[in-house]
Amino acid sequence: MPIKSLDEILDKAFEKRNGIKLAIAAAEDEYVIKAALKARDMGLVEPVFVGDSNQIKNLNQTIKDEEIRHVSDAESAAKMAVNLVRKGDANMLMKGLIPTNIFLRQVLNKESGISEKNILSHLAIFETTAYHKIFGVTDAALNIAPSLNEKISIIENSVEALHKLGNKNPKVALLSSVEKVSAKIASSAEAAMLAMMNKRGQIRDCIVDGPLALDAAISSESARHKGIDSTVAGDADLLVVPEIDSGNILYKCLTYLAGAKTAAVILGAMAPVILTSRSDSEENKLYSIALAICLG
Amino acid sequence: MPIKSLDEILDKAFEKRNGIKLAIAAAEDEYVIKAALKARDMGLVEPVFVGDSNQIKNLNQTIKDEEIRHVSDAESAAKMAVNLVRKGDANMLMKGLIPTNIFLRQVLNKESGISEKNILSHLAIFETTAYHKIFGVTDAALNIAPSLNEKISIIENSVEALHKLGNKNPKVALLSSVEKVSAKIASSAEAAMLAMMNKRGQIRDCIVDGPLALDAAISSESARHKGIDSTVAGDADLLVVPEIDSGNILYKCLTYLAGAKTAAVILGAMAPVILTSRSDSEENKLYSIALAICLG
Repeated sequence: MPIKSLDEILDKAFEKRNGIKLAIAAAEDEYVIKAALKARDMGLVEPVFVGDSNQIKNLNQTIKDEEIRHVSDAESAAKMAVNLVRKGDANMLMKGLIPTNIFLRQVLNKESGISEKNILSHLAIFETTAYHKIFGVTDAALNIAPSLNEKISIIENSVEALHKLGNKNPKVALLSSVEKVSAKIASSAEAAMLAMMNKRGQIRDCIVDGPLALDAAISSESARHKGIDSTVAGDADLLVVPEIDSGNILYKCLTYLAGAKTAAVILGAMAPVILTSRSDSEENKLYSIALAICLG
Repeated sequence: MPIKSLDEILDKAFEKRNGIKLAIAAAEDEYVIKAALKARDMGLVEPVFVGDSNQIKNLNQTIKDEEIRHVSDAESAAKMAVNLVRKGDANMLMKGLIPTNIFLRQVLNKESGISEKNILSHLAIFETTAYHKIFGVTDAALNIAPSLNEKISIIENSVEALHKLGNKNPKVALLSSVEKVSAKIASSAEAAMLAMMNKRGQIRDCIVDGPLALDAAISSESARHKGIDSTVAGDADLLVVPEIDSGNILYKCLTYLAGAKTAAVILGAMAPVILTSRSDSEENKLYSIALAICLG
């Protein structure tokens, strides 16, 4: 049975937890520490705070010495945290007080990094009362304007993640502003190619359809109105956005205006990677850690 | 006082109504007839149904002969409806059962059309409980990938409309996926140029800021978290999307997932133009007619 809610992801994380170690790169961040300690206190993970020992302790005095690996600068902290995952001493990685690009450079480093798949990509899982199940959005945060081949990898990363959440044949909607294929609208042309690649077995273990506007992807009534015949329309498990602007706008509209809950991870590395931002709610940060546990 | 809700737009339309004639191009459409008759029965407009007389009467037998201008094909109907506006015999135009591109070709026709400004553009006004006032989104439906100069005209069209709604100095947020200007993200670079054009007096009678991600544009808390110092952030009246895909996704997310109410018109012609689609709710169609009345 596919997972239907973020609380089920949390439940599944509880079933799976077993000394799961979370390496935090540049852990001297108040909000990240708070989220990690909450997950620790709930028994979900054992955090390894990699960063400036004094600053970490100043932020929270309950953190024990044995939970900290002292490194004075953020980039070295990222390198060490990545290495913990690489050696198998940590099961997942989380970004702390370090710019995303510097953090990811360590993740992607050819010699010392932990990239595994063709591409790193971002997957956010959303839950909203306006839709009958949870759904993923990719890539709303990492890849700016992915090429067709990069989109294949982005889809594959997320499909593999959805498999791990119990959805064996996820329905993938390629978002555009139209349902008719038009050479004038690049996203629609690319969607047509990706959908056909799925039909030809070049993208497997999922059902891909597109171009679909968001309403057709998530509302069967809208799909019916528009006369679209598709098993994906109205029942999508994964929404693939054309590029980062539309992804970011969708992500923010869902969380800020549609009251959606969310969990997000970076896929494509040897272990799930969590990038939370200060503006994420505490609940969403916890869901992200739970999602990373389920995908680990 | 700027208008705060779509119901206030409806109220304002009621104050203004005075034999306002609505020309409907290719009126033989069940849903368009329903919306027009509702507006008629409320005393908002006097519809002029331009199209196939038999088909129109078959769809609704209460429509009187004097309300119909018979034309047998859709393109000629669009031409006639446009001409009614051009001659001043109608105050606004609405699309019926005719493809949008064929309809707009008549609107834009150099000899017989009614285009007035540099560009036609789409403005949608949204109302949601998650934001403290109504806000506009442009251009989510008409211009696919507007150039910088086209964006200036798109902003000017909407700013003029917001002035008519009583907002004398609207706050315009140029959406992107980031707040930092980056040559890698075209929308952020373009936003920086447009914001500076506003500072230099090249775009007037509004306050333009960008690049802003959607959360910073509509949430002061998020803007504070991100350390953004802007009078627009958290208080935007108009969101300018980078291109049509992100606009369409925002529009659909607002209406299908965030439960927003909406009204929409095409700006830049001699009179407001209404393009409703079947999937629009009856309420939204009525708000669109009311908005067109206010902007006429």
